[in-house]
Formats: sequence, structure tokens, C-alpha cells
Amino acid sequence: MKIIASPIEMQRYAENARREGATIAFVPTMGFLHEGHLTLMREGRARASILASSLFVNPTQFAPNEDFSRYPRNFARDCELMETVPVDVLFAPEPTAMYPAGSQSWVEATEVTRGLCGDHRPGHFRGVTTVVAKLFNIVKPHFALFGEKDFQQLRAIQRMVVDLNFDLEIVPVATVRERDGLAMSSRNAYLSPEERQRALAISRALKAARQCFDEGARYTAQLACAARYVLERTPGLEIEYIEAVDAETLAPLKALDRPVVVAIAARVGATRLIDNMTFSPFSN
Amino acid sequence: MKIIASPIEMQRYAENARREGATIAFVPTMGFLHEGHLTLMREGRARASILASSLFVNPTQFAPNEDFSRYPRNFARDCELMETVPVDVLFAPEPTAMYPAGSQSWVEATEVTRGLCGDHRPGHFRGVTTVVAKLFNIVKPHFALFGEKDFQQLRAIQRMVVDLNFDLEIVPVATVRERDGLAMSSRNAYLSPEERQRALAISRALKAARQCFDEGARYTAQLACAARYVLERTPGLEIEYIEAVDAETLAPLKALDRPVVVAIAARVGATRLIDNMTFSPFSN
Repeated sequence: MKIIASPIEMQRYAENARREGATIAFVPTMGFLHEGHLTLMREGRARASILASSLFVNPTQFAPNEDFSRYPRNFARDCELMETVPVDVLFAPEPTAMYPAGSQSWVEATEVTRGLCGDHRPGHFRGVTTVVAKLFNIVKPHFALFGEKDFQQLRAIQRMVVDLNFDLEIVPVATVRERDGLAMSSRNAYLSPEERQRALAISRALKAARQCFDEGARYTAQLACAARYVLERTPGLEIEYIEAVDAETLAPLKALDRPVVVAIAARVGATRLIDNMTFSPFSN
Repeated sequence: MKIIASPIEMQRYAENARREGATIAFVPTMGFLHEGHLTLMREGRARASILASSLFVNPTQFAPNEDFSRYPRNFARDCELMETVPVDVLFAPEPTAMYPAGSQSWVEATEVTRGLCGDHRPGHFRGVTTVVAKLFNIVKPHFALFGEKDFQQLRAIQRMVVDLNFDLEIVPVATVRERDGLAMSSRNAYLSPEERQRALAISRALKAARQCFDEGARYTAQLACAARYVLERTPGLEIEYIEAVDAETLAPLKALDRPVVVAIAARVGATRLIDNMTFSPFSN
């Protein structure tokens, strides 16, 4: 695996590859890889002749009170895991190479980043769309793969790609879960064994929403209610939000007459976890 | 000259050209071409194997009270002028192709768009950087040429290109003037003969700043003052701003110890005109 730290060098690599007719699939990451990342990478591997990934814990998507400095990092282990896929080229820049002095430009998707995490993490999605736009211009991929676990992030990036005419395809990949249902996340590393048990209530709450849907619910409020019932009965878990909204626009929605996503954010101890499930009335 | 209206078709054209080893120079315009545009195009012609231009009166860079609907248009004449350069490919999309329903993403350069026109045209530069980012992703140029007449626009775009890692070179081109000194602008078409005479005070004011500089001025305020003296004595001309600021960052600056731009915006009748001149203490 080739490791490149310089944005300019990465652009030269990508540009040469494209000129030679290669196709590039790209999986951006913040490292501390788990099976979710590796699933994205294997999917990318199958779609293009070159598989590129990036490892960059992006400071601009963390609010000052968030976990930027203690975000888990293990570069050597991440490289080993990438070699198993295998990843062809890893872009791993320093923060000063990504945000040199004087940096002041931002990319923002507006409506889709309101509500849900957008209401609780001010500046987060602006940081995400900005760094992803930069990475797209540096890595020049034909395909970019993102997990559905970060659902609002996925929708914001899809919106940005369409609105700003990025010439690439966003490939969403289903959330990978532990055997007991917990959505995989680098932040799961923060959980004590006891907290990890409590965290299972989140995926259980989504299963409750699923059951409610399967039993013929007609309104989004019914799904949110079923999920809330489970979470409110879990001691030591603090609900940040439970919402059932339009799965495309993330706008409020009343009737279950189009695809809906039920999205949850909750704190277990000091750890903020998110998860979601989509419901399509047409496929049932 | 090939004329393309579809963003997707333009991307295919550009992608194929790049893969075949062509280089693309790009001159984005809002049409109603004058010698300033044609100078940009000839400069682009000399730099690359393909010369692309665009003609799009971008609605998002006009405030609701501005002249979007009456902005001068003459597509047939513009095409004829482009053929004389010659331009190889013209991208001329409809507004609905550039901003389909649901569009909601913006690109913004922040500090550099504060002050000067940024203070008087709210939303203007956000509209400019957004449409230029879109055009870059559609036309995929190696070089893009912009006139120094729109100096803050040039600096905002240069900032955006660096900050978002667009893999292209911005080529600034000196302002082209009428023989009597008036900076060329599509908006000069709005001026009556009498207004046109009055408008000459703007370039005269910049010449006064130049004289002041040549005579050994040491502070930016002296340059602004010299320009203001001329404009304030011109009846029927309303000053919007006269500023002497850092020519790179457009931040306020006191001493003439680094490159400075003197920038003017003024109204003559209903027509808003801008002009500027740069001063480099190192070259004198």
C-alpha cells in the first residue's frame, strides 16, 4: 500500500491514474477502523481498478467541547487492516497540510443538515462537507463509499455532490452491526462493558420501530413512539433525539407514504452514539 | 464552436479531452462580451489546447434589488465574438439545469469577502464562489482566467481554489480600459453619454492615487484620500466606497509596506461601477 501525505502528490497520483484509464474508488475515514470501514473498502475494491482510502481526523467537524483530542487513533493497526483488503493508496495528511494558515473557505449543504445531529453539533456538517469536498478534489475518485450509519452525513454529502456537480458516484453501504445488534463505530471503544450492554437499547429501539411498522403503522409518530418507549426504559441512557423523518430530505413528515428514516442519538455515559433504520412503504 | 447546454454532456466532453491529454483553459462569463472578456479568452487560447468559455447570467449572485432581470444579453453576438478568438467549446446552460429544485449547497470564502463589495452586496460572493465551483466541476479546466477589474471576486476565487484544493491554476488578467480610461464592463451599456463622461472620474481618481503613491505616500489613507478628493468633486456620482487595503487579504492596512489595492465602487445614475488599482511598494 502506497502512503501519501501531500495533497499535491495525491493529486498527481490520481490524475496520472485517471489519464491511464484507471477508475478510483474512495473510502474516506477518520481511522480506528472496524468491520464497517472494511466493508466499505471491500465494496470499493469490487467497483474500481484502484482503491484509495484516507485517514484524517478532521478537526473542523468537531465542536470545541467534543472529543477531537481523545478520538481513538492507531495508525499502524489501521494500515495493517487496509493491507488485508487490500487498499492501493492511503492518503494520510497532517492537519496543517489540509488547513494551512489563511484557510477560510467552507462548503455547506443547508436544509438537509438542519434537525437531527445538525441541531446538536453546531458546525459539524459544515466541517464534514468541507473536508469531503477537499478530499474529492485531492483523490479525484469515480466512486466514493459512505456508511448508512452516519445517515445525515450521507444525505448531506449526496446533496453536495449533486448541487456542486462533483463528477462522481456516491455509493451508500448498509450499516454493519455487531452480532448483538450494536452498530459498529470507532466510538464504541469508549464504552465500558456495562455501558456497552446499555447501548444495545438503541438497536432494540429501532427493532421496536420495525415491528410497529410491520404491524401496519401509518404515521411516523408511531415509529418514533415505539423507539422512545424502549429508550426511556433504559437506565443510564440519555436520549438526545429520536426522530422519524423523510428519508431523502430529512424534513419532518407525518404520514408513512414515502421512505422514512428513524434516527436516534443518545449518550451512554460520556459517549455519544447514533443509529438509524429506514422504512420504505413501497417495499412492504 | 461547439455549444453545450447540459452539465453532464459538458463533463463528458471535458473528461474525454483530459483523458486524451488535452489541456483546458476556461473563461467563465455572464455574456454581453467586451474587449476585457476577449483579452481573457486570447490569454486562455495561448495557454491550453482547448479553450472553453461559459455564458450564464448567474441568478444566485444578484440580490433581489439588483439588475438580474435587466442584465444585458445578446447570445448571437456573443457567439460571433467567441468564434473570432476562437473559442472551442461554449457551455451555456439554462438556470434550471444549474439550480434544479432542491439545490441547497453553497461554497463560501469568508474573510476575503468581508468589506468592499461584500458589505454592499449581501450574498453576492457566496453566489459567485458557488457557481464558479460548479463550473469548475463541470468544465474541468487546467487554467481559469479572471479579470482584475473584479478584484474582490478574483481574490475570493483564488482563496476558494487553494482552500478546497481545486486542481487548477487561476490566471489573473489586467483590467482592459477604454482609451479614455473607463474600465470595460458589460454594465457600461447602461450609461447615457452624459453618465459615461461622469464615470471617467473613477479612473481619474485611481490615477490621482497613483500620483500620490509616486510622490512618496507612506500610508494607505493618503491614497484613499487622493482618490476621494477627485470623486467628491464629481457632481452626479455617488460614492459607495473608496478603500485602500491589503492587496492579498483585502484586510485593512495602515502603512504602505506591502502590496495595496485601492478599490472604488460608485453609482452614476442607476448604474453601479467598480474599479481598482494595485500598488506594490517593492517595485518602486
